[in-house]
This record gives sequence, structure tokens and C-alpha cells, in this order.
Amino acid sequence: MTGSERQLLSGVLAGDVRSVARACRMVDESWPGHLELLASLFPHTLASWWIGVTGSPGVGKSTLTSRLVQHLRSAGTRVGVVAVDPSSPFTGGALLGDRIRMQAHWQDPGVFIRSVATRGALGGLSRTTADVARVLSAGGAEVVLIETVGVGQDELEVMHVAHTTLVVQAPGAGDDLQAAKAGLLECADVFAVNKADLPGAESAAQHLRGMLALTRSSAGAPAGHAGHAAHRAAQEARAPAESGDWEVPVLSCIAQRDEGIGPLLEALQQHRTWLNGSAHGQARIRARSHRELIALLRERLGELLLERHQEQIEQLAERVSRGELDPYGAVQVLIRTAGLG
Amino acid sequence: MTGSERQLLSGVLAGDVRSVARACRMVDESWPGHLELLASLFPHTLASWWIGVTGSPGVGKSTLTSRLVQHLRSAGTRVGVVAVDPSSPFTGGALLGDRIRMQAHWQDPGVFIRSVATRGALGGLSRTTADVARVLSAGGAEVVLIETVGVGQDELEVMHVAHTTLVVQAPGAGDDLQAAKAGLLECADVFAVNKADLPGAESAAQHLRGMLALTRSSAGAPAGHAGHAAHRAAQEARAPAESGDWEVPVLSCIAQRDEGIGPLLEALQQHRTWLNGSAHGQARIRARSHRELIALLRERLGELLLERHQEQIEQLAERVSRGELDPYGAVQVLIRTAGLG
Repeated sequence: MTGSERQLLSGVLAGDVRSVARACRMVDESWPGHLELLASLFPHTLASWWIGVTGSPGVGKSTLTSRLVQHLRSAGTRVGVVAVDPSSPFTGGALLGDRIRMQAHWQDPGVFIRSVATRGALGGLSRTTADVARVLSAGGAEVVLIETVGVGQDELEVMHVAHTTLVVQAPGAGDDLQAAKAGLLECADVFAVNKADLPGAESAAQHLRGMLALTRSSAGAPAGHAGHAAHRAAQEARAPAESGDWEVPVLSCIAQRDEGIGPLLEALQQHRTWLNGSAHGQARIRARSHRELIALLRERLGELLLERHQEQIEQLAERVSRGELDPYGAVQVLIRTAGLG
Repeated sequence: MTGSERQLLSGVLAGDVRSVARACRMVDESWPGHLELLASLFPHTLASWWIGVTGSPGVGKSTLTSRLVQHLRSAGTRVGVVAVDPSSPFTGGALLGDRIRMQAHWQDPGVFIRSVATRGALGGLSRTTADVARVLSAGGAEVVLIETVGVGQDELEVMHVAHTTLVVQAPGAGDDLQAAKAGLLECADVFAVNKADLPGAESAAQHLRGMLALTRSSAGAPAGHAGHAAHRAAQEARAPAESGDWEVPVLSCIAQRDEGIGPLLEALQQHRTWLNGSAHGQARIRARSHRELIALLRERLGELLLERHQEQIEQLAERVSRGELDPYGAVQVLIRTAGLG
């Protein structure tokens, strides 16, 4: 570690805002030394609690996130916010301005806010979401809120990064996204029905409770799809089948008017207590570490081979594009070259 | 290759429907020997043309796909359809019934239809989409239509799998998905404005043409985001900057009434001619091979290490979840163990 890297590390640990911002950029853009920095920060991140806030566009995620920040701050808690923005696969740039709505908190030194861009090639949630959340935690954030875009995969993936996943719904919104909803039901640790003053809010909450009861009674059925050990592990750690399990609560709120936020925070806190205090909660935490390790491993290996065998990879791709070699054979050649075959 | 694997291979190459269906299942579920099968099929897939059909839910992708199948069949062309379904990350199962609308074609031996499920962990488009398209091609499909769900990343990812990407729009639909649209503009090889009888269709087409003209005039600007060589390569291969480049046409149609499908197919065919006949088209094809190779490589390496070091990975994950070890350090340990460090 160079002198400036050591300085950055101690700056982050002291909660210096500029150091935290610089470290976020460093991990988001994979600067040299970012893995060493993350490793050094890790022991200082373990007490932090990460809450994923997900749900379809238009349900009021940003407003609700902003309210949660406000309530946590009133209690003296230091908060980080990671906002995951969608992006063109070309520019890698952020397109939505959600964070602007958070600007009330920008002046508060007890709140760290950071946007990360989703990257097309790697699925919905940014690869760096967990790394950025880790920097904010090491910088002093006791709670990190991870706000997703709510489109496609990132809605579901946030559950693998966050300790606790809050799924936000609103009456009448996103009716054409039933498929995504089906997955959301199983992602949620806590449901919030926002805009509870609108017609249909109570029936939406009832509907959710009914669906959740149905899921509980069918838990313990065989998992169905073979070969997905990590999925199964996560499922087993979540599917309630015996006493001591977590029952997903459904709470109503009106974020715009600051109504119902206190009880929502309490429900989230109860989930945290359950996570830390129960065998099922501990299994969830282990499954989360396992999943992160595999993801990091795949990525690091890909990078290693790309660095070392760049020229060969390009030659092989050329031959595949001319139809002289099949891509499966090309991968075998590379794996042998790397001494792994 | 075992006797039954050889039998399967020759069955697929003979266009036997049961063999094709079995081979699709084999690659979709990663049965032993599926990579060898795909390698053997590869030389027989090179003449096939893959068209991605993407766009937001509700624009009429399925109806349009069905019409394209019908027109191609009238011309005697053998067609494959890969329908990418959304799924819960838990069940891995298909949720939408789009393929039911295709049932008019199920009785036609010149049409192969196969659904694949998206898998949460791997982003929007299924990992196996290209493999299944390859099986259909080897089974005799001269054209393979890949119909996406149109939610989140899969809209964009299909451009990396297909030779030609058709983006379908409809007046008034999906206005809240501007962010995704911005990416779609750069994905499209051909735009179809469907439901052209609805109000606003002509202005939607005009708006698209205006946006495309804007994109063309700004092409050649610096790429912006560093460290994304594959993205840049794909972009360079697409961004028109000199003569001989592809200009994205915008066509109107009414799939429901079978209007405008002929000209649309002609525009798609012109893109294919451009791909095969121009330097830029050839660069696109190389970039596509390069991308597939990297994706396969990452996946295969991950599997190899998971198989060989399963116990160690679980022990390391356990230590990470207890906070005794950071995940970045754990990955270093694994890479050293594998002899790669």
C-alpha cells in the first residue's frame, strides 16, 4: 500500500467526506489498489446494516428512502445511501436524477450519498454496489440504504446484497409487471404499501398478505430446479418452514406526508434482530457471503485470464467469428493454456 | 461421445423434432456432454441468421414475431423461435404464457419453438439463449427469432446474441421507461413502430427518426467510460461514422392486421446483407464472437473452481460471514490454491 493509499484508508475510517467520496470512486472504477483498500476496510464494516429498497418505478421509493434517512438521522444514526441508476450499456453513465430528490440530505455530514451505474454486461444491479456500500459503512454509516431502479433484475438481486429487503408497492402501479412481482414476493423481508391514501391501498395490502400466507403454507415443497445450489441455499435460508422463522409483515405508509414511517422502521429493525439472533438468520448471512465470494471469484478469474492471455483470446475470437473454431473448443484451449485443463 | 450422444447429434442434424427438443433441454439444463454436443453442432450453425425481437411489454412483440414466422414460412424458410421468459430467481420456471400465442405454428414441422427461462443470478437474458439458438440452427432453422421479455437488461443484451436486432415500439406504450429507451436506441438495427393505426404512431416514428439522426451526428465523440473494452468494441462496430455504415430504418406496421410485415422483413434482410458484405458488419460479427468467448470463459472457470475447491470455498464463505476474513482476501487464497496467483 502506497503512502497516499494509507492516507485514503485512514481518511475513510475517520469519516472524512472527501476520502469517502474518493474511495467510492476508486472501487466503482476499479482503480489499482481498490481490492487492497476494500480488504483493509472490511473489518470496519461488520456492524453496519444494509437495507435494500426495491419496487417498481413510480411507487415512491425515493421519497420513502428520503423519509427513512430523515427518521434515522433524528435518532442520531449515521446513514449511507447507495442509489443504483440505470444506464445505457454504451456510456455507463447515470440517466435518472433520483438523487436530486435527496438533496435535502446533501448538506448533512451524517449522510453519505453515492450513485452507482448498472452495467449492461453484468446484469441489473451494479457489480460495485456491495463495494460502495462497504466504503460508506467503513466511513461511519451505521445503516446503508440501497435504492434500486426497480426495473428487471435489480429488483431481485438487491436481496443478495442487502441484509434486509424492503419491497415497496403502491395501489394501481405496475400492474403489467406481474412476472417481476412474483419474484418480489419471495425477495421481501418487509413490504410497504405506500400512497396508502389512494383508493385500492387496503385491498393491495390484503392481497399481499393473502399471497404471503399462500407462500408460507406451500414452503417445504421440493425446490424444483436442479443444479442451482446457491439459489436453493438462499431459498432454504428464507423459506419459513418451522417456528423461529421470519414472517414478512405488510405495512402501510404515506411517505409524502411522513405517515407510517416509524412503524416501518420498527419492522425493519425486528428483521435485523431476527437475522442476528436466529439460526435461520445466520444461515441467510452465510448464504450471502457464499454468493458474494463466488461472484468475486468469477470476476477476478475472468480479469486474470483477460490480462494474461489477451492476444490469444483475440486470435481465438477471430477464428470463431470466421467459423474455423467453435467457442466451446476455444474456451477449452484457453483453460489448458492457463494450466487449468 | 457415447452412443446415445452420437445418436442425438445425428438426430439434430437430420432435423428430427424430438432430437432437437431433447438437445435444447440438454443445453438449457447443462447435462453432462452438452458442451461436446454444442461443439459438434457449431459448424452446422454458421449459415443461420439470428434476429432479436425486443421492446417494452405491451408493444406487440409476440404478435409481430408470429407474423414474421408466418411470412418466412410462406417463402419456404425454416424458422426457429427462442422465447425468453422471465422467472422467479427461486423456481427458475417460466411465468408468462407468450408462447401460447404462437400455437398456430406448433403444428408446422418447419418451425421450432423453444422457451428458455431467464436466471436471476446471471442478468436478464438467459445464459443459454445462444446455445438453444444454436441447437435450433443445427436442426435446420435458417432464421432464428429471439423474442425477449422486454423488461430491464434483456432488452439490451439481445443485441449481443442476435445478428440483427429489431426494436419494436408502439404509440403511447412504456413512456415511463425512458431510461431503457435511451439504451434501446443504440441497440436497434431496425425499428418497427407497431399498432400504426393508433393515434400518435406517426409522431412516434418521427420522434425516433429525429433521435437516430441526432445519434448519427454525435457519433465519433469520445466513448466516455474507461475500462469497458468490450463495450467500446461493440460501440465502434455499431456507431456509424463514415460511408458504408448502417443507417437504422424506422418502419410502421400493424402486426394484428398483417400490414407492413413484408417491408419490415426486407429491411431486416438488408441489414443481413450489410453485415456480411461490409467491413463494419464484419467488425460487429468479430465483436460478438469476442463477447461470447469471454462470457463462456468466465462461466467455465467459475464452474471449474467450484467443482475442484467446493469444500474450501464453503469454509472460506463461513469465515467471511463470521467476519474473520474479508471476501477479497478469500478470493486471493482461492486463486493461489488454484495455481493462478
